[in-house]
Amino acid sequence: MVTSPVVNTYPLSSYTFGTKEPKMEKDTSVADRLARMKVNYMKEGMRTSVEAILLVQEHNHPHILLLQIGNTFCKLPGGRLKPGENEIEGLKRKLSSKLAANSPSLQPNWQIGECVAIWWRPNFETIMYPYCPPHITKPKECKKLFLVHLSEREYFAVPKNLKLLAVPLFELYDNVQRYGPVISTIPQQLSRFQFNMIHA
Amino acid sequence: MVTSPVVNTYPLSSYTFGTKEPKMEKDTSVADRLARMKVNYMKEGMRTSVEAILLVQEHNHPHILLLQIGNTFCKLPGGRLKPGENEIEGLKRKLSSKLAANSPSLQPNWQIGECVAIWWRPNFETIMYPYCPPHITKPKECKKLFLVHLSEREYFAVPKNLKLLAVPLFELYDNVQRYGPVISTIPQQLSRFQFNMIHA
Repeated sequence: MVTSPVVNTYPLSSYTFGTKEPKMEKDTSVADRLARMKVNYMKEGMRTSVEAILLVQEHNHPHILLLQIGNTFCKLPGGRLKPGENEIEGLKRKLSSKLAANSPSLQPNWQIGECVAIWWRPNFETIMYPYCPPHITKPKECKKLFLVHLSEREYFAVPKNLKLLAVPLFELYDNVQRYGPVISTIPQQLSRFQFNMIHA
Repeated sequence: MVTSPVVNTYPLSSYTFGTKEPKMEKDTSVADRLARMKVNYMKEGMRTSVEAILLVQEHNHPHILLLQIGNTFCKLPGGRLKPGENEIEGLKRKLSSKLAANSPSLQPNWQIGECVAIWWRPNFETIMYPYCPPHITKPKECKKLFLVHLSEREYFAVPKNLKLLAVPLFELYDNVQRYGPVISTIPQQLSRFQFNMIHA
């Protein structure tokens, strides 16, 4: 039989959560965001962003850690790479910026694992596709999602203006209205993994 | 940078297609199918099925080979494993049964690759999930999708009652109405691969 890659998944209760200074969004509207993207594209070319899928378990079911901004919008932790920055190093930098305490001794052991999906933004618009559409020779953004393997115990510091949620796969699945196309199909992308649910 | 696994994709025109005797569906209705599934479950336990994603390229965009039954219903080539049968051997058997000529000398070189998704059927119903839902201890079916790496040239023999279609990823994406939840999210599952489009 073909063996699926195994992912150890620890209980949510084995992690500790504190807060830190707010991390404000750089833009106050979608229009501002797309305009800033355009300015950056002129200077630096295609934007590459990296995002993390951090898994915990509750009631023997995998949950994903999402950052909630305001009352409804959820996003994966991550962000834009600097020009020429290595993907793995850049994702670690972004995870520490979004989820780690400021003290270097309190950094989680970010083990960046498998790339599970790649999304493309053909134009300066919100819509993205899981392939580079035909006839698009200059995509504006490439977003890569990585599985990040968490250690058994970690301390996370969450910016005060954000909430960190553990959302079960069954809540994400088929829920594009609430979570958008990228996050709502994470269950399908994770289906090939075997989750080893570890109890406290 | 993290390197994506590379998949060589050859033009549709480099393959040859013929026909062979019809392969009729075992059931004439969904109710019949679920009833037969229940009978088999009583005898053999959980059903394991294996299906293949066969890729070709046209206009530099990946296309998937689907079998069309009647005017609308499409499915991936594959089928149910015999009790205890090896997944790889079982998928090769099913692919030869559905897509190869009867002569042993004309069998395509089925190179079974990565498992890209696993779907679970919790009950004797049509609905499947990309995870085993909480509280389901005895799922009724586990369906695994594998990438199959085609050689540069092959001869396929298509049963006379079926049509073999090459459907572009952009047609499958976000098209659950036409292709169902399993096939319509294949573009997301393939997004992590890098397609090496080979021209004739």
